Amino acid sequence: MNFSYLSHLDCPQCGETYDANDIQQLCVCGSPLLVRYKLDRVKQELKREDLLSRKADLWRYHELLPVSDPLNVVTLGEGMTPLLELPKLAEDYGITTLLMKDESLVPSCSFKARGAAVGVSKAKELGVRKLAMPTNGNAGAAWALYAARAGIEATIVMPLDAPKITRSEVALAGARLYLVNGLISDAGKIVAQEVGQNGLYDASTLKEPYRIEGKKTMGIEIAEQLGWEMPDVILYPTGGGVGLIGIYKALQELQEIGWVEGKLPRLVAVQAEGCAPIVKAWEEKAERSEFWPNSTTAAFGINVPKALGDFLVLKAIYETEGAAVAVSDEEMSVEQEKVARLEGAFICPEGAAAFAAARKLALAGWITEGERVVVLNTGAGIKYPESVQVNPPLLEVGEFISPIEQGK
Amino acid sequence: MNFSYLSHLDCPQCGETYDANDIQQLCVCGSPLLVRYKLDRVKQELKREDLLSRKADLWRYHELLPVSDPLNVVTLGEGMTPLLELPKLAEDYGITTLLMKDESLVPSCSFKARGAAVGVSKAKELGVRKLAMPTNGNAGAAWALYAARAGIEATIVMPLDAPKITRSEVALAGARLYLVNGLISDAGKIVAQEVGQNGLYDASTLKEPYRIEGKKTMGIEIAEQLGWEMPDVILYPTGGGVGLIGIYKALQELQEIGWVEGKLPRLVAVQAEGCAPIVKAWEEKAERSEFWPNSTTAAFGINVPKALGDFLVLKAIYETEGAAVAVSDEEMSVEQEKVARLEGAFICPEGAAAFAAARKLALAGWITEGERVVVLNTGAGIKYPESVQVNPPLLEVGEFISPIEQGK
Repeated sequence: MNFSYLSHLDCPQCGETYDANDIQQLCVCGSPLLVRYKLDRVKQELKREDLLSRKADLWRYHELLPVSDPLNVVTLGEGMTPLLELPKLAEDYGITTLLMKDESLVPSCSFKARGAAVGVSKAKELGVRKLAMPTNGNAGAAWALYAARAGIEATIVMPLDAPKITRSEVALAGARLYLVNGLISDAGKIVAQEVGQNGLYDASTLKEPYRIEGKKTMGIEIAEQLGWEMPDVILYPTGGGVGLIGIYKALQELQEIGWVEGKLPRLVAVQAEGCAPIVKAWEEKAERSEFWPNSTTAAFGINVPKALGDFLVLKAIYETEGAAVAVSDEEMSVEQEKVARLEGAFICPEGAAAFAAARKLALAGWITEGERVVVLNTGAGIKYPESVQVNPPLLEVGEFISPIEQGK
Repeated sequence: MNFSYLSHLDCPQCGETYDANDIQQLCVCGSPLLVRYKLDRVKQELKREDLLSRKADLWRYHELLPVSDPLNVVTLGEGMTPLLELPKLAEDYGITTLLMKDESLVPSCSFKARGAAVGVSKAKELGVRKLAMPTNGNAGAAWALYAARAGIEATIVMPLDAPKITRSEVALAGARLYLVNGLISDAGKIVAQEVGQNGLYDASTLKEPYRIEGKKTMGIEIAEQLGWEMPDVILYPTGGGVGLIGIYKALQELQEIGWVEGKLPRLVAVQAEGCAPIVKAWEEKAERSEFWPNSTTAAFGINVPKALGDFLVLKAIYETEGAAVAVSDEEMSVEQEKVARLEGAFICPEGAAAFAAARKLALAGWITEGERVVVLNTGAGIKYPESVQVNPPLLEVGEFISPIEQGK
């Protein structure tokens, strides 16, 4: 038994293959690369039951992850997040079974930890000493923290408007932090220049092949948590779209090793009305998206005007007969409060977008009676303090709650 | 097999017993009550191996929890948090094995979720419709969220200086929120008046018996994660002290059912120099603490000038030959950064206090060669954005990182 059944990398665009023992970034054709495994051997040598005695983190799937030597695993205990039934919200939406995959319960309180854990571990295995990346905040925070644990120097560039707390995370981890008075695409240009000049490892979204592998564990976990069954629909808030690509890849791999059977879930990419390039492309039945000018949304993590992996996201949607849905910031805000009031979860605006989309798709009859629906909440609401306005009454010492207040 | 092996409640001060099927608050003698189980039957009927196929949350220990009917369980997926090795920090401290029990990976990102999950579940089982509590922020946030999920109305009173994000959590959950221009003890008076006038369930620390049961699962998890061995030392940041009382109770129960053997770990209560009533009492070998006047510390969660359960905390320390240690806010701040830079974890100030104490106790020789030490990080650093100051360089679009900056 190997720790990893890693085989090689290949290009989903031109088919070129690459050696996974060397540092690889994009394909020569410009496409992101995908990681391939010896799935026939996994099928023969690994049984689902083998997982039972393993720790409840994403490394329980190490055969399907790209790190060859367990000594290179850089972990903060990420993965195996709750898959929670939300019965009151389900009733409100008119959905038979509504489940939340709650990615707030990971290090740094955002699902970016999964990509960072696997990406940084593999970077360590490949001998990387310095990496750089642009970020909308949460990914940079996660990569900076895991890089610190790995002893890798990180350079992080984020928009001025990115969630402020992520600055603290990056700085406290000892990474080099820069702000840019622009968008993540502007941060990307700064990183590209820095990478080119100083020979850093480019950890930008999909410019290294391993972040997807971390994200795909969400898909494996959903299957395991449902007793190796697949749900009917999975909704995912989509910026760069790595999670959606990863979940799709995971479920295909699980099919290939015989751990799940039947039809794949319909995958739904959820975007903000102020930044909806994937939705536009899907509506036009296009294979790729176009740059979305002057993008804006309170759900900062999905403010990505043009994703490098757009064609992979769209392929996953088309092949699973999924959909792409845009929601307004107002709808997110309403849904964020609804989820907290009914189910006690303080979700992030991006997660709220996915819930708002679930409501819309149920109302439109796209989600039907008897279906099992999984919504990804990609992070904790507490990382976005400005998303909630609150002005509670202030009492002085010696004052008590007045009967008028009590009647509220 | 029962879901719970709950037996009754008893008073650790006067020995009086109470029926656990009715709502109980404090003992008539004024002491908190403790929950007792039919441990002889648990010993006969439950094996450690039975846990293996259960979910990775604290309800895997349901036989040792007070909720009788699984339908009353109110869960957001709390528990089975990582127990992480911190090798670089261990070397820095001169400790052989240093482990962090990371309680940032729970709903609401603070260990208060454990007490809230079990406390609210049992309140629901007992038919409670309305509850009230004073809080330093995180407990109120957790109870408000779990109460929302349970359909229970919560009234939460917190100091004006409590972490602001906890206001958002409470408000978003739909709870009644009040601020007081004072300390948690002042909030307590407001709650007491409200409870008395309106017949609410008093969910104040230790005024209901079930919060301890949630917190004790940290102790069970530590034992399970170490393969049913106990560490040599456990350090715990101590405000109300419920976690320390709970861990002590857990390990005693595990001994009684034969799941762990040998000497209990030395339990260490860590406080801030600006609020150290337990440390003062321990130094004076007293059984109880005195009210600490004008208490102040940046670690807001441990700003508790007089804990109702002080005698239980002190008993746990004395009986395990533990200690009580105070650290300065400056020491916490230094340690918070150290943990992030070396190990990639952004811990809360209270957790940082416990790490600072570990460093002191190693330096003093109180922790010795070969010992295995567990430090509790009670929450995520991101709930305390003001604990980190950061002023990164700002670039305009079109600007790049300058060579001078690169050399930093």
